[in-house]
Amino acid sequence: MEGITKTDKRNKMPIIQAPLKDMQFLAEQLLNLEEHYQKIPQFADIDAATFETVVDEASKFLLEYAAPLNRNADEQGCSIKDGHVTTPDGFVELYKNYCESGWGSLDGNPDYDGQGLPYWMQVILGELNTYYCPGWSNYPGLTHGVRELLDHHARQELKDMFLPKLTTGEWTGTMCLTEPHCGTDLGLLTTSATPNGDDTYQVTGTKIFITSGDHGLTDNIIHLVLARLPDAPKGTKGISLFVVPKFLDGERNNAWPASIEHKMGLNGSATCVMNFDDAKGWLVGEPNRGLNIMFSMMNGARLNTGIQGMAVSAASYAGALEYANDRLQMRSLTGAKYPDKLADPIIVHPDVRKMLLTQKALTEGNRALTYFTTKFIEISHHAQDEAERKRANEMVVILTPIVKAFMTETALEVTNYGIQIFGGHGYIREHGMEQLYRDAKIFTLYEGTTGIQALDLLGRKIMQFNNGKIGPLADEMNEYINNSDNPYTQELKDLMVQWQELIVKVSTKSMKNMDEMGAASVDFLMYSGYVMLAYFWAQMHDEAEKGGRFGQSFYNGKKKTCEFYYKRILPRAQMHVKTMLSGSDNLMQFELDEF
Amino acid sequence: MEGITKTDKRNKMPIIQAPLKDMQFLAEQLLNLEEHYQKIPQFADIDAATFETVVDEASKFLLEYAAPLNRNADEQGCSIKDGHVTTPDGFVELYKNYCESGWGSLDGNPDYDGQGLPYWMQVILGELNTYYCPGWSNYPGLTHGVRELLDHHARQELKDMFLPKLTTGEWTGTMCLTEPHCGTDLGLLTTSATPNGDDTYQVTGTKIFITSGDHGLTDNIIHLVLARLPDAPKGTKGISLFVVPKFLDGERNNAWPASIEHKMGLNGSATCVMNFDDAKGWLVGEPNRGLNIMFSMMNGARLNTGIQGMAVSAASYAGALEYANDRLQMRSLTGAKYPDKLADPIIVHPDVRKMLLTQKALTEGNRALTYFTTKFIEISHHAQDEAERKRANEMVVILTPIVKAFMTETALEVTNYGIQIFGGHGYIREHGMEQLYRDAKIFTLYEGTTGIQALDLLGRKIMQFNNGKIGPLADEMNEYINNSDNPYTQELKDLMVQWQELIVKVSTKSMKNMDEMGAASVDFLMYSGYVMLAYFWAQMHDEAEKGGRFGQSFYNGKKKTCEFYYKRILPRAQMHVKTMLSGSDNLMQFELDEF
Repeated sequence: MEGITKTDKRNKMPIIQAPLKDMQFLAEQLLNLEEHYQKIPQFADIDAATFETVVDEASKFLLEYAAPLNRNADEQGCSIKDGHVTTPDGFVELYKNYCESGWGSLDGNPDYDGQGLPYWMQVILGELNTYYCPGWSNYPGLTHGVRELLDHHARQELKDMFLPKLTTGEWTGTMCLTEPHCGTDLGLLTTSATPNGDDTYQVTGTKIFITSGDHGLTDNIIHLVLARLPDAPKGTKGISLFVVPKFLDGERNNAWPASIEHKMGLNGSATCVMNFDDAKGWLVGEPNRGLNIMFSMMNGARLNTGIQGMAVSAASYAGALEYANDRLQMRSLTGAKYPDKLADPIIVHPDVRKMLLTQKALTEGNRALTYFTTKFIEISHHAQDEAERKRANEMVVILTPIVKAFMTETALEVTNYGIQIFGGHGYIREHGMEQLYRDAKIFTLYEGTTGIQALDLLGRKIMQFNNGKIGPLADEMNEYINNSDNPYTQELKDLMVQWQELIVKVSTKSMKNMDEMGAASVDFLMYSGYVMLAYFWAQMHDEAEKGGRFGQSFYNGKKKTCEFYYKRILPRAQMHVKTMLSGSDNLMQFELDEF
Repeated sequence: MEGITKTDKRNKMPIIQAPLKDMQFLAEQLLNLEEHYQKIPQFADIDAATFETVVDEASKFLLEYAAPLNRNADEQGCSIKDGHVTTPDGFVELYKNYCESGWGSLDGNPDYDGQGLPYWMQVILGELNTYYCPGWSNYPGLTHGVRELLDHHARQELKDMFLPKLTTGEWTGTMCLTEPHCGTDLGLLTTSATPNGDDTYQVTGTKIFITSGDHGLTDNIIHLVLARLPDAPKGTKGISLFVVPKFLDGERNNAWPASIEHKMGLNGSATCVMNFDDAKGWLVGEPNRGLNIMFSMMNGARLNTGIQGMAVSAASYAGALEYANDRLQMRSLTGAKYPDKLADPIIVHPDVRKMLLTQKALTEGNRALTYFTTKFIEISHHAQDEAERKRANEMVVILTPIVKAFMTETALEVTNYGIQIFGGHGYIREHGMEQLYRDAKIFTLYEGTTGIQALDLLGRKIMQFNNGKIGPLADEMNEYINNSDNPYTQELKDLMVQWQELIVKVSTKSMKNMDEMGAASVDFLMYSGYVMLAYFWAQMHDEAEKGGRFGQSFYNGKKKTCEFYYKRILPRAQMHVKTMLSGSDNLMQFELDEF
């Protein structure tokens, strides 16, 4: 744990600096950031020092301006009056400051005044936004996806209309998919779009759960809305995508927030019911291809959601670790460790350590998974060689549902332990630990639930698109394993074999009965996540053996956490194997009145 | 799931009747309630019909009067002004109605106008209180423990002062243990008690986390306060117990609420900081024996907390099951099951079933564990034969930490799934699913955290007091297993052997290093819980084979849930074995700066 703590203006809760060394260690040592960027001409000058500067400056900015707003953002939340949503105190000023300081346009397209830095910088900024103030993180976060989508799919005229101000952050964006009767099942959506005769459409319908649907941070909000054209086919093949701004040349468009949701957490983030009532908009991309286009953005949104899970985990670990060192309660089971104090700090107790180390092993493993995925996203976009781009893309496609679901499910465990380590004090709002759990829970739900990610991974990505293979991701992992020789190599080797065998077993059963795939899918996803983290922890162990600039305690901690991971966390993988292979009958044989 | 739903006045959220059939099935078939009471002369007339009447009438009363207050209790919470705590709207009237209807004195001592019904009736009442309105359940719940304590430990004069009105419910009670710097470690407490020369004391100090510390439900509140006498030894051996009423003969005593906590949940329950400033009180029991006396009450409080976990689990399952049947989204993986509907109800999806069945298997298994423990508590108090009382007490002593910790940890999983099954809607407060998680989280914390329960079970109860044996509890279980012949018998047999072997392995290591015990303790407790539930599910399977008055679907459901439990839940036990035996080194080898 690193130093620099500050105090929340409202609650005297310490604000602890994000683990910048961990972030740098992964980029520099585990993922060879410099070697990586040297292969991408446009980023050839990005080095460890650039990374460190961005990490340091972003952290400094957000610790100073975002973190102190966090507690109040949760307590105050958002409100709506006369069709205007008000965000928590300080968010308007923070957003202005954030954009003026250049954080809104970090990896933005230089054609529209973006700074053109690599996506990875955006990822660490997103991580830090959530770490310091989860409820704030969606305002800049979603805009990034909207501008990416328009940049890839809109015609030039629309780009010119929207991209300059979305890139600087002067405007924010939304994704309007869900309707009251359909979230996962977008084929049921009924919002309509009627052509006006010119190149515009009248969009009409109600959308729910619209993050940042309305607020006063910016002069305009750009909505991406899924809707049906008059003669569109039924189901998912009749959905088109429209861009519908809140304001058109200064005039209010008929896209209004009808209400805001009262949620379990993430209260700083405005979640709106949006009414589109003959709102004027433009078609993006081809008619009836809206879902495909939106899904190109969804993948980024899913990665972001996984990162949000990892970032709140990091915040929970930081808080719990500080408390476990400070709180004096009982003596060590092996005799007083601090006889001069009234009692020992609770970090002497084995179970407190078990909880802290579970937090550490999962959080740092998930961060490695995040940056690894990020690196291959960049390769998939920028590698010189097309085959290399394709290979990287195949990896990212498999990684995305794991990142989204595994990192958010484990975030619930980590943030729950954060409360538990505080004892009864964890349940009290002013300590901030319970907020992290409440904020985290949405991450297993929005952008596709864990169940949906699991079907996407096993059913769609692996069985349907990849011929039942993990593919290049497994090759990449095996390349390391085959050249590795540490106490974990053999176990990792066995896991790689088992992973592929599991797919064969489940696939074979699924050919006769697709419920077999469904019944195995979440266990398979969680298993995959634990295997991925085993791979990263073995590598972190190796890097710690090599040493480097982060100090001996830092590296000792990594090696010991690797051991902890293999002994105390990885056994879960075999539990998932057992339940995964137990078949679908034990679920499907229930009649409805037998539940 | 049974019928009868009502609508919450505030939020149109359905209120679903508690699973009364499940409660009756366990009492009548699994635990032979009639045979049980025939052995206890004072309760010989209690039969299945009595049980059914109490269950039905309590459920009817609470569904009508408590459940509709639940949502508002969470939203409105409690408040404090000028030293008076105000509870949510309707609680004052509900409490009056509850006592006037006789629910406050169900198992109360008839010497003080109690109804003298068995403790089990009180247990189901507690379950139903929490099921219908968790935030309300602590007002009647704690009073029960306070009057039990005074009945067992106070001298007659104090009994006469306090028991009549505590028994009818006209007064409520509190337990004042925790201070700002000590919760688990009560040896550090500093509240003082100075003799007045007569038989009274002046009690001075600050207590925190005092449930029901102040409110307007009753004319008086009776505080049980741990404090030190002037010459008391340091540590836990110098703590005495005092009874300190809010009012003394109509005059206000100096025991005031200083503030109330703002919590993650259970907002209807007032959690107070209490200032005692020369408050007048009486010593209960012997000087310096306060902790022992208080702990006799703590065991009941721990059982109650476990029951609270089980009850919110039941509420979460009921809500999730109704939603899974109603919500239409996507088609079954094996083709449309309801082609006439827009989509299939989500209960067709394997992973939704897996979540629902996990809720069902854990909740119903935990209810069996609750009633089993309750039955042996009654035997420990009322059996004719002293040896039988002793044997039952030995069982209860082992069961209490399992009930407290296993049932509350699994409640977090169950209530989390309740949110997850609702998708994004589960995160919205008006659906009530997220409240159940927030309410549940305190149960793993108060009355001793999970970690404390685990040390109590393995270190204190089994290793220290029971010579490393599970004892009569294992005998009781083996008696069933040795006479059983179903598909689960062999696995259960193996588990019983393994359970005892694990104790030997951990004990042996712990002799050299007590951290080995600490490092294994939580895994051991969770393992023990899964073994207990395997025992109950096998028995429920047998009872379902026999059949009875609850209908074929009901029994089919039990048999299939047993299969689900063994195939999908029980594999966790072996994961706990692996981590439990991994030793303490992987936790203890970290230096503080290596975290």
